[in-house]
Amino acid sequence: MVRMAVLGCGRIGQMHAQNILKHPETSLRGVFDIDDNSASAIAKKLSVKKITSVNEVFESDEIDAVLVASATSTHADYIEMAIRYGKPILCEKPIDLDLNRVNKLAEIVERSSVLIQIGFNRRFDPGHRSAKMALSNGEIGDLHQVIITSRDPEMPPFSYYKDAGGLMRDMTIHDFDLARFMLGSEPVEVFAVAGGLIDPEMMEDLDDHDSAMIIMKTEEGKQCLINNSRIAVYGYDQRVELLGTKGMIQSNNKKPTEILRFTKNSVEVGEPYQYFFLERYAESFMAEITAFVESLKENKPAAVSFNDGHKALILAEAAYLSLKQRRLVKIEEVI
Amino acid sequence: MVRMAVLGCGRIGQMHAQNILKHPETSLRGVFDIDDNSASAIAKKLSVKKITSVNEVFESDEIDAVLVASATSTHADYIEMAIRYGKPILCEKPIDLDLNRVNKLAEIVERSSVLIQIGFNRRFDPGHRSAKMALSNGEIGDLHQVIITSRDPEMPPFSYYKDAGGLMRDMTIHDFDLARFMLGSEPVEVFAVAGGLIDPEMMEDLDDHDSAMIIMKTEEGKQCLINNSRIAVYGYDQRVELLGTKGMIQSNNKKPTEILRFTKNSVEVGEPYQYFFLERYAESFMAEITAFVESLKENKPAAVSFNDGHKALILAEAAYLSLKQRRLVKIEEVI
Amino acid sequence: MVRMAVLGCGRIGQMHAQNILKHPETSLRGVFDIDDNSASAIAKKLSVKKITSVNEVFESDEIDAVLVASATSTHADYIEMAIRYGKPILCEKPIDLDLNRVNKLAEIVERSSVLIQIGFNRRFDPGHRSAKMALSNGEIGDLHQVIITSRDPEMPPFSYYKDAGGLMRDMTIHDFDLARFMLGSEPVEVFAVAGGLIDPEMMEDLDDHDSAMIIMKTEEGKQCLINNSRIAVYGYDQRVELLGTKGMIQSNNKKPTEILRFTKNSVEVGEPYQYFFLERYAESFMAEITAFVESLKENKPAAVSFNDGHKALILAEAAYLSLKQRRLVKIEEVI
Amino acid sequence: MVRMAVLGCGRIGQMHAQNILKHPETSLRGVFDIDDNSASAIAKKLSVKKITSVNEVFESDEIDAVLVASATSTHADYIEMAIRYGKPILCEKPIDLDLNRVNKLAEIVERSSVLIQIGFNRRFDPGHRSAKMALSNGEIGDLHQVIITSRDPEMPPFSYYKDAGGLMRDMTIHDFDLARFMLGSEPVEVFAVAGGLIDPEMMEDLDDHDSAMIIMKTEEGKQCLINNSRIAVYGYDQRVELLGTKGMIQSNNKKPTEILRFTKNSVEVGEPYQYFFLERYAESFMAEITAFVESLKENKPAAVSFNDGHKALILAEAAYLSLKQRRLVKIEEVI
Repeated sequence: MVRMAVLGCGRIGQMHAQNILKHPETSLRGVFDIDDNSASAIAKKLSVKKITSVNEVFESDEIDAVLVASATSTHADYIEMAIRYGKPILCEKPIDLDLNRVNKLAEIVERSSVLIQIGFNRRFDPGHRSAKMALSNGEIGDLHQVIITSRDPEMPPFSYYKDAGGLMRDMTIHDFDLARFMLGSEPVEVFAVAGGLIDPEMMEDLDDHDSAMIIMKTEEGKQCLINNSRIAVYGYDQRVELLGTKGMIQSNNKKPTEILRFTKNSVEVGEPYQYFFLERYAESFMAEITAFVESLKENKPAAVSFNDGHKALILAEAAYLSLKQRRLVKIEEVI
Repeated sequence: MVRMAVLGCGRIGQMHAQNILKHPETSLRGVFDIDDNSASAIAKKLSVKKITSVNEVFESDEIDAVLVASATSTHADYIEMAIRYGKPILCEKPIDLDLNRVNKLAEIVERSSVLIQIGFNRRFDPGHRSAKMALSNGEIGDLHQVIITSRDPEMPPFSYYKDAGGLMRDMTIHDFDLARFMLGSEPVEVFAVAGGLIDPEMMEDLDDHDSAMIIMKTEEGKQCLINNSRIAVYGYDQRVELLGTKGMIQSNNKKPTEILRFTKNSVEVGEPYQYFFLERYAESFMAEITAFVESLKENKPAAVSFNDGHKALILAEAAYLSLKQRRLVKIEEVI
Repeated sequence: MVRMAVLGCGRIGQMHAQNILKHPETSLRGVFDIDDNSASAIAKKLSVKKITSVNEVFESDEIDAVLVASATSTHADYIEMAIRYGKPILCEKPIDLDLNRVNKLAEIVERSSVLIQIGFNRRFDPGHRSAKMALSNGEIGDLHQVIITSRDPEMPPFSYYKDAGGLMRDMTIHDFDLARFMLGSEPVEVFAVAGGLIDPEMMEDLDDHDSAMIIMKTEEGKQCLINNSRIAVYGYDQRVELLGTKGMIQSNNKKPTEILRFTKNSVEVGEPYQYFFLERYAESFMAEITAFVESLKENKPAAVSFNDGHKALILAEAAYLSLKQRRLVKIEEVI
Repeated sequence: MVRMAVLGCGRIGQMHAQNILKHPETSLRGVFDIDDNSASAIAKKLSVKKITSVNEVFESDEIDAVLVASATSTHADYIEMAIRYGKPILCEKPIDLDLNRVNKLAEIVERSSVLIQIGFNRRFDPGHRSAKMALSNGEIGDLHQVIITSRDPEMPPFSYYKDAGGLMRDMTIHDFDLARFMLGSEPVEVFAVAGGLIDPEMMEDLDDHDSAMIIMKTEEGKQCLINNSRIAVYGYDQRVELLGTKGMIQSNNKKPTEILRFTKNSVEVGEPYQYFFLERYAESFMAEITAFVESLKENKPAAVSFNDGHKALILAEAAYLSLKQRRLVKIEEVI
């Protein structure tokens, strides 16, 4: 049993806390939030201890590992603490919005042997994972093209958007990681197009985007497309397509049931896709905890490493440079 | 080039006439209908000769073969004429509504060598045909169960129903043939349930049915279900399912396009299935002419023989006996 | 929290025990099995108490309700005990293999007010349930036909078959219940065809069947087909189709992931369906516990009552009479 | 009846000739090919006149219109002749490989009123057309993103590649047109990535590409992706996806039949997609003739105009500039 604590009691922190409770190999020793009311509410709801300071978490002998689901601005600090206290950490993405900060952190991480896993949960989605396995098994021969479609069901509110760090660092960051996971090699060039098509005014105010297309290329010439939108009224749209010399593999969306309706106007009508990531990726969030526990038990490297988090952020940075200067950007320019 | 004439200028006769015109190995030498206006209209529309008597058709040296699409009550007579005149015939189903008549005709047919093909077009549907081929190739091992779903898009009018000879002889007859085609052996037992669920009053008046389920068993014990309804508002529903020891094969419905719609309420919404048999089975109607021409050219037995038409009618007869006496009927009882 | 005990520690008992542990509103107070080793193993594995006698279970003040997953032959006795001790019971299907026994038990049950829920879990499958709801909401108008396809992935071993009570009471019993659930009214006639197509010798020895088709009709004339086979190599096949005047609804099979493969030989290739009932119906087994808890808490009648279990058994009995005498059987003959 | 002649008797010319023969409103008055043997063979096969000079075609009083399916290098000349002789022309794509030539031709075309239709047949595909109609009807609200997947089943031989004018002018040109058709407004920026992933050596030799991704943006900011590959072993892959504020529409691939196979290893296995454009787009090639005839009869502008052909070529030119200089290209740079 890995005894864990959760830092951050928002929507995602709560989900993680519940998963830790349900997971057969973890127990939950407490929850912390900078907003004490939040922590109290979750602690009560889940019948677990409310912890009142971060230090207490990292110093405790009764806590083997920490799951970080607090505000992005705290991630880097907590990772540093994890290293200092020698306490394994499963940290939500992104590592930080500031690449410089992450670059410096990377040097510290490199010298440390503490387990740091970044929360790119989609790698653990059974569908995406099977696609990757089929690819690795050579089922489609040499990989040529990766197409990732990733669309949120609806626009987040202004308040969320404001602190999220921009579309590329908040939303696309998952797709950058998934792209690297599928490509099996590093993109060396990035070109991005983005705009405010859904809510032009809000995007103008925030200097942010709600719709984007990003092309990347690896050194070997493999091509990758990421396609993002903050609006997919038919439900959370999460697809991966892999084209190779011997075939194609798609990892497609899931419906809540396999009901089909047939009426005068249409046939084979499915129910809307699962609404959002908590439902769509429920299995993957459990599976990332399993991977974390396995790394701990078997002293294996992290299934999704700090370096993976770092690389995804570099791709986001490159995408922003491409958007700003409206040109193709080489990854080496932003490292 | 096989020079053909068409007897009967109703909806189906007209379709056949057009197919003969389009077919690269047939030409249309004329059309006949007992209603001279009908024949005139079609002859004019298709720029072909109107023929004014059936005898003229069978006696003509310029006509190699005859396609019969006239009223059911004329089929047996025309088959007899075909034999007498030695003129090959492709005759619409059913052979006749009266099994006794067909039994007697069978004796004449047996002594003749004139090519007689019955219009069970569904055997030539590319999907059903591929399913049969996969089955014959052993893809699903030994066949155990056949499930045929056959539903019309909407109730035909009273006037049609009145002369059609009853659900089993008019509509299910196709499914009886398809069942024999797929089973590859003869059903020996039939049990039927049927009723007037869509229009109980009209069915009562006509002593007919609009909904039915029929179970058949072959000597080896293979099980077959036919499922009929006169109402499928989502379009003509024509499916065949074959279960074997090594797998299953389905031949499913076709949509007019592969458009899918995704909205707030539903996903992967397809366009209604092709409305009715003229569209759904268009390819099969052409293919049955090809088969007829091949039989003629290569002196091969009919792809769908008089015997096939006879056997399907016997199954319909058995189904009616089952409905009347509400019991399992052995085929031998009605032969 | 409903404190529960589980009787029977076989495959299904163990699954139920785990569900009770996971369920947010139930706790597991102990497990019992007539084979003490079985009980010990599960008790240890799940870290719960092993109970050594059935009486202890029913007499305990610390146990609010009992889940029965023991051998079918014990069900009726345990239901009687539940009534005697006033302890609510969630009992696996079938109630008993002997209809006479169940008839007598029914009289006792009728005079009692103890909650008895029968384990027809499929009613709680999200897909089947949505289909039923859509039907109840009038989405497809008047219901005319119900087609239930229910096929096991592979033949159970002789040892299982021997004690299972025959295909109709063991396997089809679920489909009889699902048929009643969907039809919304009682079948009044049953006709069955069955045989030993997969393993004729074993079926001969056991006087049992591995393949069946059953037609039922309600008083209003609604038609229902059940289609069973013990072999579906492509995975557990569980489908329900509802045809009505305004449309059709299908509740179809689930795949483990939404991966599709495209190769030189085939396209849109899905992964095999979930192998068997523990996976396919996982959600429904949890949901039936939720329903049981709700009935307890809100003092509501059982979501699936003793009467439902009784009626399904009567349909099985009718099907056997139909098979034996090879004729249509009226339900009133076997009540 | 529109009396037509076909220039060019290669694979596509022959297909067009057959379509003209089959079409109810056109007749075929002759075929011409610079290779007299080719023309003779087709003339004989189709029982039509072989014409021995292009002048004869354009001068003939018995020929109302010309379909051009000859080598690309002849298209511009024939369009000029069509204008000079006042003879309507349906000309295969692309207009020419040299944009300068087309720019000059455009000036002549502008002063003329002769009907010139360019052979972008995909606009007439029933699926793509329905998608466009649904879009025009407002079904998905405002259009934000267009994703076009267009992959050939296998690499064409060196000989074909050599004269084709490059991937963008030969293959992507269709997608550029389809993009404009769907976007409903002009792309103003183009960025392309392309490479030789399938056959790097041959691509190196030819200075050409076999795999590409192209992003385009309209003035309003609508985003469009084209995704090309010369290898899709699972069959010709032709998909269009439209994302809007109220939903998504996909026009997907067609299978030859709706057969599905279910085996131990996989379920719902479809037959490979139709192999290539002659099969996949058969309906669209007939429909473009219908559109041409309608424009002629009703004196309407061309359904696909010279300007459409011109604009598509400009996009190809922009894509090449983007590839060459590895940067985002504004359309105005290449006009």
